Amino acid sequence: MTTATFVHAGCPVCISAEQGLTQALDPGRYDIEVVHLGDRPEAIATAQAAGVRSVPALVIDGQVFHINHGADLADLTA
Amino acid sequence: MTTATFVHAGCPVCISAEQGLTQALDPGRYDIEVVHLGDRPEAIATAQAAGVRSVPALVIDGQVFHINHGADLADLTA
Repeated sequence: MTTATFVHAGCPVCISAEQGLTQALDPGRYDIEVVHLGDRPEAIATAQAAGVRSVPALVIDGQVFHINHGADLADLTA
Repeated sequence: MTTATFVHAGCPVCISAEQGLTQALDPGRYDIEVVHLGDRPEAIATAQAAGVRSVPALVIDGQVFHINHGADLADLTA
């Protein structure tokens, strides 16, 4: 199993993308980990190191997919 | 089966997102349709009507996910 990490910040754009996209992933191959940066601000640095620049974002096998646009990570740390 | 439509324009950002994301969808539930707007300019209007504003984009059940950013659709029609 591969972990697919969905990073969000609780915004409406994030929630909508999370529900629509993560449910479409193959549950036979992916464990979905949801990281809420609003609840876990200590995870912001980890997300940035992984290449996440805005939320919502999905990280699969080290590849970052920025989905639509809710907020820039830089704004979450401001 | 539901059709998941991946709309792109052949750009490197598009190809990368197509390969990384469509392969992660559940093949038991989704038929993947790939629409290359460079090859099929007549499909641009259809994509715009579906809510696609930039490529690459993935459309599942009427929900549009703009993935990273390759090009605005408006620039493809200019």
